[in-house]
Amino acid sequence: MKTVHVNLGNRSYDILIGAGLLERSPDLFEMRGIRKRIFLVSNDSLFKLFGKDLLEKLQENDYQVTEILIPDGEKYKNLNTVENIYTYLIAQRADRTSTLAALGGGVTGDVTGFVAATFLRGIPYIQIPTTLLSQVDSSVGGKTGVNHMLGKNMIGAFYQPHLVYIDTETLSTLSQREFQSGLYEVVKYGLIYDQPFSELVRDSMEDILERTPTVLERVITRCCEIKAEIISNDETERDLRRILNFGHTFGHALEAAAHFQGMTHGEAVAYGMIAATHLSVMEAQLDTSVADEIIRNILQVGNLPPIHTLHTEDILEAMSRDKKRLGNQNFFVLLRAVGKPIVTGDVPEKALTEVWEETKRVSASASSRG
Amino acid sequence: MKTVHVNLGNRSYDILIGAGLLERSPDLFEMRGIRKRIFLVSNDSLFKLFGKDLLEKLQENDYQVTEILIPDGEKYKNLNTVENIYTYLIAQRADRTSTLAALGGGVTGDVTGFVAATFLRGIPYIQIPTTLLSQVDSSVGGKTGVNHMLGKNMIGAFYQPHLVYIDTETLSTLSQREFQSGLYEVVKYGLIYDQPFSELVRDSMEDILERTPTVLERVITRCCEIKAEIISNDETERDLRRILNFGHTFGHALEAAAHFQGMTHGEAVAYGMIAATHLSVMEAQLDTSVADEIIRNILQVGNLPPIHTLHTEDILEAMSRDKKRLGNQNFFVLLRAVGKPIVTGDVPEKALTEVWEETKRVSASASSRG
Repeated sequence: MKTVHVNLGNRSYDILIGAGLLERSPDLFEMRGIRKRIFLVSNDSLFKLFGKDLLEKLQENDYQVTEILIPDGEKYKNLNTVENIYTYLIAQRADRTSTLAALGGGVTGDVTGFVAATFLRGIPYIQIPTTLLSQVDSSVGGKTGVNHMLGKNMIGAFYQPHLVYIDTETLSTLSQREFQSGLYEVVKYGLIYDQPFSELVRDSMEDILERTPTVLERVITRCCEIKAEIISNDETERDLRRILNFGHTFGHALEAAAHFQGMTHGEAVAYGMIAATHLSVMEAQLDTSVADEIIRNILQVGNLPPIHTLHTEDILEAMSRDKKRLGNQNFFVLLRAVGKPIVTGDVPEKALTEVWEETKRVSASASSRG
Repeated sequence: MKTVHVNLGNRSYDILIGAGLLERSPDLFEMRGIRKRIFLVSNDSLFKLFGKDLLEKLQENDYQVTEILIPDGEKYKNLNTVENIYTYLIAQRADRTSTLAALGGGVTGDVTGFVAATFLRGIPYIQIPTTLLSQVDSSVGGKTGVNHMLGKNMIGAFYQPHLVYIDTETLSTLSQREFQSGLYEVVKYGLIYDQPFSELVRDSMEDILERTPTVLERVITRCCEIKAEIISNDETERDLRRILNFGHTFGHALEAAAHFQGMTHGEAVAYGMIAATHLSVMEAQLDTSVADEIIRNILQVGNLPPIHTLHTEDILEAMSRDKKRLGNQNFFVLLRAVGKPIVTGDVPEKALTEVWEETKRVSASASSRG
């Protein structure tokens, strides 16, 4: 088991990473002084896979555990689900000493964290992420929240968990596509922060894709370390934390232009990173041979759904909508080199058009090879 | 103008108290680096009384101000109102640099603070409380939130404002009953924290009731100072902050037993403080002559609605419900002397019965005199 400490003063906490951690839950809770009343938030399928065993294990150790099952999927990440959980918690007489535990992917974690942040003005919560994406990304850092009809993640709070623990064995049940989607975020950490790690990921890609436990543990741990360092310096995303959005300004626009269909978030971010790499050559003096290698590393993860059939104008239009929403400015994370990010404001629309045309060419040539 | 600094690290802020501060809003905003996009949350009647002028004043000084009017009253302090505000903010393209300003009493402040805490994971907000109760109590300390169908203030967050400013002139429009209801909280501050202030309030009661501006400014300032000291030591109510609940355990039960009718929150707290004073004699060795004087000071504020017609069993029943809701324990703030509070856990039901019988006797004899 590896431990990553997130240093945030009196809101500090540990991230534990290892195979078989779920079984050790009672000890992990005990060591951190978690009280005996637990509400386990999960969805139907994950509860069957892991939740039921976890619940029984905890009950055997005198924890009073109640499950709260919520529907799965981004479209249920809303205030309605949040309100249902409040109602249930009140009916079950949850109090300020009760702890919420989120067992699942990003939706479960974000919703549970937001309920924890806002029930009785804040109660403790634990993240038990089961997807690669949530293990390296959303479960760490205290970003909680839900979507509003008019926009994703518009409602939320920064609220840190008391503990995050990552059982790498849960990854064995992920589909290959879901696993690869998380891997793009792994690649991202190397690119924005750690050149040697970037090389390690590149060189271990085969083992990673085979989900070799020791390799997974090492890779996930490093991602969590990097994220912990970044958020320890900038908990509420005023500056440094923005570099985590590498590929995301482009990726969001792509998701919107594709009407969130046929593409996972990770895949959109993959294309977004390719686009950001092109822009880095144009605006941040990134060496073209380095850019080519970055793009190869991204494509090495697996096949991406084709995007060259999308209209560039539609993607630019989506970027412009994002821009208006964000106070009339887009932010782009660019790379001067691997591990050397810069954040920049707006770039000329002409450059963006060029970047998308380049990115679509990558998609077209990858598809023709694929 | 008086200034009280609330010392909470990077969440520190000032409370300004004085007559005519509303007119000086542009300067106050400017000095604190408030950005130009303001959403002014208020209700219809207060907007007519003060909001419209404030909005124009700010607009003259290049602020872009939009009003958001919400219905007045505790029953609208809910997630539905919160969601309506989110929708409006998104439609109006509010972003993380926008500031919410709450002009009104406790409901407006609590709702606005909660929206600020949870919109885009937190945006700045300003409290401009217009009732005595909100000036000395809810606007200071960062408790934000709304009610759930199944319980008051169940949903919320600790989230500090960027600025609180109190224009004592807004008090001139309060009904005498509403003003007096706030005064009970003023009396509370002396009792739990500051014996000399308790005497000052007693000796200045006539001037206070006549709303003499200089006296109001001094009294409100001292209440804010006391609250600021307490919350600086205990932002999230783990220990010291609990003493602010003097009279509230009893008061809540009384409100519930009376079905929240015929009694303001302040009046319920007044009776609650009388009950807590009786209990202090029984359980905290409070001198009986001091207890008598405390009760005289409370009654000096004005007439209280009679409660001797309520059944003691109903009040005890409400206390027991509260107790179950709070993890099977009630907390009582008792006084060993004026300014010397202690917090204690459960007391025998027999003692509570006796306390309520005593308190009802006070009500009966005050009514027969009144």
